[in-house]
Amino acid sequence: MELRKGLEDIAVKETSITYIDGELGRLYYRGYSIFDLAEFSNFEETAYLIWYGKLPNREELSEIREKLASKRELPPSVTKYLMEIKKDSNPMDVLRTAVSMLGVEDTDNSSIMEKSISITSKIPTIIAYFLRLRRGEDIVHPDESLSHAENFYYMVNGKRPSDLESKAMNAALILHMDHEMNASTFACLVVASTLSDIYSSVVAGISALKGPLHGGANSEALKQFMEIGDKEKAEEYVLSKLTKGERLMGFGHRIYKTYDPRAKILKGYAEGITKEKGIYNLYEVAQKVEEVGVKYLGSKGIYPNVDFYSGLVFYSLGFDADMFPTIFASARVVGWTAHVMEYLRNNRLIRPKAIYVGEIGRKYVPIDDRQ
Amino acid sequence: MELRKGLEDIAVKETSITYIDGELGRLYYRGYSIFDLAEFSNFEETAYLIWYGKLPNREELSEIREKLASKRELPPSVTKYLMEIKKDSNPMDVLRTAVSMLGVEDTDNSSIMEKSISITSKIPTIIAYFLRLRRGEDIVHPDESLSHAENFYYMVNGKRPSDLESKAMNAALILHMDHEMNASTFACLVVASTLSDIYSSVVAGISALKGPLHGGANSEALKQFMEIGDKEKAEEYVLSKLTKGERLMGFGHRIYKTYDPRAKILKGYAEGITKEKGIYNLYEVAQKVEEVGVKYLGSKGIYPNVDFYSGLVFYSLGFDADMFPTIFASARVVGWTAHVMEYLRNNRLIRPKAIYVGEIGRKYVPIDDRQ
Repeated sequence: MELRKGLEDIAVKETSITYIDGELGRLYYRGYSIFDLAEFSNFEETAYLIWYGKLPNREELSEIREKLASKRELPPSVTKYLMEIKKDSNPMDVLRTAVSMLGVEDTDNSSIMEKSISITSKIPTIIAYFLRLRRGEDIVHPDESLSHAENFYYMVNGKRPSDLESKAMNAALILHMDHEMNASTFACLVVASTLSDIYSSVVAGISALKGPLHGGANSEALKQFMEIGDKEKAEEYVLSKLTKGERLMGFGHRIYKTYDPRAKILKGYAEGITKEKGIYNLYEVAQKVEEVGVKYLGSKGIYPNVDFYSGLVFYSLGFDADMFPTIFASARVVGWTAHVMEYLRNNRLIRPKAIYVGEIGRKYVPIDDRQ
Repeated sequence: MELRKGLEDIAVKETSITYIDGELGRLYYRGYSIFDLAEFSNFEETAYLIWYGKLPNREELSEIREKLASKRELPPSVTKYLMEIKKDSNPMDVLRTAVSMLGVEDTDNSSIMEKSISITSKIPTIIAYFLRLRRGEDIVHPDESLSHAENFYYMVNGKRPSDLESKAMNAALILHMDHEMNASTFACLVVASTLSDIYSSVVAGISALKGPLHGGANSEALKQFMEIGDKEKAEEYVLSKLTKGERLMGFGHRIYKTYDPRAKILKGYAEGITKEKGIYNLYEVAQKVEEVGVKYLGSKGIYPNVDFYSGLVFYSLGFDADMFPTIFASARVVGWTAHVMEYLRNNRLIRPKAIYVGEIGRKYVPIDDRQ
């Protein structure tokens, strides 16, 4: 039996959802370039594309938009839980628990697709309620007249987004919606392959995304820019990190050996939105870190990844740094559920093996004869 | 790239925890035969063995016993949640949520081992509280003077177990503690490999175990015996199932091609304990189903598995059929956490791939030009 730790070169399914070209730095959802989708599309349209495999026409778009808009409010038990938990609770622990509670509450027999839409609709509400409650602010209930991205911003900030904020919010969510196979999507599949329910799958996805090797890097990248504080200090900071053999946060990706296309797109939004927020100095620091980082690491195929600029965008949109992985989850849930539905069309239980390297046939010894 | 759906012949780690001999029908924890452990050991001792790799001496056993006994009570928030949820909630959904809540509550910096002991200690309390509350009974708080298995029985039934019940409870839990790699243990590893926390891993394990292809079969096997009701009808029932090409619940295993050793051991307990409970007729039905099943399926390597007799034992011990997967989880958590700790000693992010079979380079079309 082969030991294939990490499963690097093993394909666990066929997919027509996402294609990554790691050499050229290209990402496609259902065959459409991420550059087009981030520029021309919005959350509802791209979610529809990922779930159903085609861009929606006007009727289909208005239907998915209405469905997503009408399911945002949380069951009272979940809102109550968010009101009562400690304010310093880890946001990903809170999200994992709240989604699990949604699973307890949901007893209707709707399809996995309907349930996926419902979960996707409610995750921003969980995040925004918890964010405001821990700040000591009143919760802002969802507004059905707003789009998914605008309503998310509105529930966090208590006001409607500017045009740029709305555009940045949509683009940032679209860019995080899917990324082929990855640890959290795979966790969803392992759970789904036992024919467990979709809430259990999504809970497993959140559980995996919480890990610093997966969803935790975006807040680290932002903290790094804040720590540097001044663009004049960026070069020295990066060189000191590299000399000590430390990792530059937001740099490098197992698949992309050039610029992550998501980083390129987010950079544009980060520039505009930090200016609007009056924290352009952080953008300047980031830009300098990028420049120095690419100079020293680019030849090794190490470039900025999605986490490098996403933190600046999320922070500018009113989110606290420790909430970033939850926003990531609010978008990636579309990919998680789409991959689960695709896998279940031809399910096979995922049950790998282990290679035994211990003893066999040890003699059971009475307790008083043990060392 | 190779497509290896289901990952059947792929080893994802080396292990010295569990060895299964599927041809001979043998199972070893840390090199000790399951036959010896089920007969001579108890929950605390075998949990220690699986976690630490050696049988405990008197001092070590009393230490682990004390640790497990002292951590059983739930945080008030979790007990409150169990009191307020709907009585017809799915027990695995409830367990998944309650363990996730424990993760929110646990903010201390103790080791993964200490946290694993704490989770293992509390899962029976979650199960017993929910079971009694939904029956409209008062909860029975844990009793530190009792062993893990006895206290579990006590919290469910409100009285101490007989000698046979205590022995059966210990054996049944020991038999479910680990089984090398399997979907739930693997779900725990995928989550752990991102360096997420141990609660997130266990929550993913519960999520996977909920699936009918994994942890759900034991209640189905019992329901089958109840449906048959009379041993005289067993043969006809089995033949009718097989003729229709339906699956016989509790039969067959991807690894064992002969008797699952756990089924053999549980059969002995099922016989004694159903007699004690006055439901020996169910045991007789089971025995007849086994006889007929083996007659027709044995030549194909399809034999009773662990789920075949475990339901009879759990039912006799006072558990409702829909709670069986939670008992399974209460034991398997030892294996889950042991495998996570073993994997993290030499971690590698688990990130497989997918093979893209869709289109690339589709042109983004304005909405009014779409079909």
